[in-house]
Amino acid sequence: MQLSQKLSLLREKMNERNIDACIIPSGDPHLSEYPTAHWKIREWISGFTGSAGTLVVTKNEAGLWTDSRYWLQAEQQLDSNQIKLYQDGKEEVLSVVDWLFQNLEPESRIGINNALFSVEYAQELTEKFQRKQINLVNDFTAPQEIWEERPKMPTDMVTAIPDHLTGLSRTEKINQIKEVMKKNDITYYATGALDEIAWTLNLRGADVPYNPVFYAFMIISNYDIKLYIDTHKLSNHVSKKLTDEGIKIRNYEQFYEFLNCLSLNSTLLIDPKRTNMATLSAVSTNATIIQDDSIISNIKAIKNETEIDNIRQTMIKDGIAMVRFLSWLHKNIEKKAITEVSASKKIAEFRKEQSGYTGDSFETISAFRENGAIVHYCATPDNDTKLELNGIFLLDSGGQYITGTTDITRTVALGNVSQQAIIDYTLVLKGHIAIAEAIFPVGTRGAQIDILARKELWKNGLKYDHGTGHGVGYYLNVHEGPQSIRTQENPVTLKPGMITSNEPAIYRNGEYGIRIENLILCVEIMETNFGKFLGFETLTLCPLDKNLICKELLAEEEIQWINNYHKKVYETLGPLILCDCQEWLKEVTLPI
Amino acid sequence: MQLSQKLSLLREKMNERNIDACIIPSGDPHLSEYPTAHWKIREWISGFTGSAGTLVVTKNEAGLWTDSRYWLQAEQQLDSNQIKLYQDGKEEVLSVVDWLFQNLEPESRIGINNALFSVEYAQELTEKFQRKQINLVNDFTAPQEIWEERPKMPTDMVTAIPDHLTGLSRTEKINQIKEVMKKNDITYYATGALDEIAWTLNLRGADVPYNPVFYAFMIISNYDIKLYIDTHKLSNHVSKKLTDEGIKIRNYEQFYEFLNCLSLNSTLLIDPKRTNMATLSAVSTNATIIQDDSIISNIKAIKNETEIDNIRQTMIKDGIAMVRFLSWLHKNIEKKAITEVSASKKIAEFRKEQSGYTGDSFETISAFRENGAIVHYCATPDNDTKLELNGIFLLDSGGQYITGTTDITRTVALGNVSQQAIIDYTLVLKGHIAIAEAIFPVGTRGAQIDILARKELWKNGLKYDHGTGHGVGYYLNVHEGPQSIRTQENPVTLKPGMITSNEPAIYRNGEYGIRIENLILCVEIMETNFGKFLGFETLTLCPLDKNLICKELLAEEEIQWINNYHKKVYETLGPLILCDCQEWLKEVTLPI
Repeated sequence: MQLSQKLSLLREKMNERNIDACIIPSGDPHLSEYPTAHWKIREWISGFTGSAGTLVVTKNEAGLWTDSRYWLQAEQQLDSNQIKLYQDGKEEVLSVVDWLFQNLEPESRIGINNALFSVEYAQELTEKFQRKQINLVNDFTAPQEIWEERPKMPTDMVTAIPDHLTGLSRTEKINQIKEVMKKNDITYYATGALDEIAWTLNLRGADVPYNPVFYAFMIISNYDIKLYIDTHKLSNHVSKKLTDEGIKIRNYEQFYEFLNCLSLNSTLLIDPKRTNMATLSAVSTNATIIQDDSIISNIKAIKNETEIDNIRQTMIKDGIAMVRFLSWLHKNIEKKAITEVSASKKIAEFRKEQSGYTGDSFETISAFRENGAIVHYCATPDNDTKLELNGIFLLDSGGQYITGTTDITRTVALGNVSQQAIIDYTLVLKGHIAIAEAIFPVGTRGAQIDILARKELWKNGLKYDHGTGHGVGYYLNVHEGPQSIRTQENPVTLKPGMITSNEPAIYRNGEYGIRIENLILCVEIMETNFGKFLGFETLTLCPLDKNLICKELLAEEEIQWINNYHKKVYETLGPLILCDCQEWLKEVTLPI
Repeated sequence: MQLSQKLSLLREKMNERNIDACIIPSGDPHLSEYPTAHWKIREWISGFTGSAGTLVVTKNEAGLWTDSRYWLQAEQQLDSNQIKLYQDGKEEVLSVVDWLFQNLEPESRIGINNALFSVEYAQELTEKFQRKQINLVNDFTAPQEIWEERPKMPTDMVTAIPDHLTGLSRTEKINQIKEVMKKNDITYYATGALDEIAWTLNLRGADVPYNPVFYAFMIISNYDIKLYIDTHKLSNHVSKKLTDEGIKIRNYEQFYEFLNCLSLNSTLLIDPKRTNMATLSAVSTNATIIQDDSIISNIKAIKNETEIDNIRQTMIKDGIAMVRFLSWLHKNIEKKAITEVSASKKIAEFRKEQSGYTGDSFETISAFRENGAIVHYCATPDNDTKLELNGIFLLDSGGQYITGTTDITRTVALGNVSQQAIIDYTLVLKGHIAIAEAIFPVGTRGAQIDILARKELWKNGLKYDHGTGHGVGYYLNVHEGPQSIRTQENPVTLKPGMITSNEPAIYRNGEYGIRIENLILCVEIMETNFGKFLGFETLTLCPLDKNLICKELLAEEEIQWINNYHKKVYETLGPLILCDCQEWLKEVTLPI
């Protein structure tokens, strides 16, 4: 179906229900970052494949809002005659809400499928639009209904993972959750966040790419646990295991029905950021709804000892794969035709050779020269670029291992590069080191320390527009809450056991992109009269490109950090790596 | 009246109205930081004189919550047998709300005078307490009614200040405000924030100490401006001026009445942080209430060219007073008996000799040795301490001038001090310089840059528990919103023209306090391909104590900053200062 056809069909449906505008977001009813094909409605209509973006269609206009990571990609993919790009985050660009508020007449009607909107966002919309008597129509599902050849929901099987990998049994986890519920007088706790369900039940799935999760809802009460799922996804073995442990298995669709039958005087906890609005709407008036942070999300973020030990082992495996790739790249760049796509296949191959690897943790970003400036660039056979000498190559990739999830970015010089690129890399590295070396009291939020990664860039009139660090799951989502290190406020404080990325960057449009990313573990550093102080341990093991480092710009402490890091990388990976790589690794990890 | 008598009288009144707990905050119906004596109800009952603190009285208990600045003071002033101190901000200490939530039975009744609670706080209370069916009784005014010899409201006259001091006439200011109102479809805009009213109308008063404001409310609509005030405070001259410019003068009490008569389909803007709950409760159901940031507060924070020029001149005057004081102190410390109280009188005397000075901008903190560790220490004849050699002296003071408000802290070594003190001072100074030298893109919030002041302290296991910077008014409140530089999130971004303090510190209980405070003006630094970048210009002119600086701990850039700053201080103040001080100033501002 052509874009024009889709839009006119949609407008017909809007007209039938007297709807002036409709909002089509990216996610699914679980507010997943990567929805299964069945839920990629916004992508199907607009043609824009980025993971974040919101389509708005009015009677005469259509606009797509996406953040700076995707501006270039959206520009390339959108038909600008039919859909206008709105660069979300630019000061002069109105947000979706403000744009609608300004462009719609009072008493207009906006159609949404409220299963695709978080409670928080839906409430924000309602509140704002009330001021102009604009009404939300909550059950406008036309955008998905006009999709004739819509993919089916996935039917992949769910697998159970053993306690020695998770550190805690599902019963132990559920007891931890119930304890918090009890303390806060919560009768029911409902979640549709797929990673929360997978984590709690020590189950994994394959319903969506990259995230080992499965479609389900879960309700924990003080007397039982209900799992709402397409029951065909559970083998008899897994079913029995769950049932034996008191977990009741229900059909996926029954979730909303049960919410309609909560008992009198009960309280229901939902996380307004991670729960869809249809959930809230379904809740019986018997129950008092408590909107608060998800209990599971907070427990899950603090990795237990087993998880941390396993992740440290996983980092060795992932480091070996990366070192083999980088060494291979440097040795073959002049001999073979290596492209962005073939490079990303190669790193996946090296990872596949590591035990416990089950797939990539996100779509590899393999970007040469100016493509590196497209933050979430995706090389395809159509735009594939050959890697050549005298250019900057950026590789952002990660693996899912049954013992943990990795996410690493290395930027390397192929041949000679400009002095500007070397200075840029060094400034980014200074930011990276400042985060790695940060020391802060208990109670500090990510937004407070974020500037450490940016300060040196800002001094030089440079900046990057994305976060410095996202939480990372354990054999789960590579982007995991609740903590973050970013400019935007996030009330969650950094706590020992949390794993976060550390990825400052700089992007020069038309030239190159530079990003340095390691995963860091929050740890306790010291206790003084003034209290406890925390910091980070860098987990990722892979050399940085010394050819891109300008030593003159570094302080003595920073040089020390680089040399210590390289020493650790060599001492850990060196003995485990193949002979020809070992020589290369030794060379690139020598002190600067 | 004895404390026990006050509490039992209050509990009697509580009993009469079936009230289980009452909350008595610090402020007045204008949520002033410094209320007039008439409104110091919490102080009268509890005996605690600090500017921030909340008293809670239940049937059997009484507690006072105050933040770290006042912990030591509260400990000294409270009768701990009758009122327990709760150290607000400590992780293990429940907030007032949480404490009440946990300690009261369901269906309890809490009495408040809602004129003393901000809309924001009252709504937070209501929302939280609803969960446990705890009710708020909004008109519980017994705490003020049992006060027999309660001081009257002040009757001081209001004065008008000329346009050449303010840069903008009141008509120009009102037009700016109305423009924003129009853009946001606001019919009425009500404010009880005294500094907002004084600023808008180019009027000043003397109703409270330190802040040159007067008690009033104001309502701006698209057709008129109403000033609610004790009309005796206005001379015929001022009255006529205001009336001629279309400002209608009404009795103070009529404010709430008018709110009850707003016209149909109108909208009323109030700032939930700066408006009391009684205001909200008084509003007619005809009007839609819009809770948003105060328009005036946002305009006022960005000083205009005239204000900035005048402040620069004021800093010279204040700098001269400070230099004369410091030089006098060093010359006389061994000759005369100088105490904390006499020192604070002396700096006030030096300020009085400067033209345009109208009084202090807050209560001077003159603190020797361990007294410096009490953040808002106040020397009185009772606790006055003699300054002697071999100790650290901290002086935090400021003046109100008709051309601006100052606020400066200098910490000086009298005789020899410990190496620890020198290291501490140097770490604080590093933080001070990091803020002064910060460069950040447009759109940056104070909470993002705050860590720059703390980073070096944290690395050494040290910290201070107050903000790094508060906004400063122009011949107005020394603590002014909406911007701040502090750990706590504040969504307001730093903008050129804003004036903020820069005051990192360290406090060692029983030893000393060190704080270095200058005022800084936000200015544009550069524009690159990546956008506009801002930074600060330090406004305050007064030498730092070189005896407390450990050069070895400083980076080359930091040494440069100190030498440049001292050069500027000497070049600006030197030619204007008396002969004997000049020699001293030259000496103390020589490069390190």
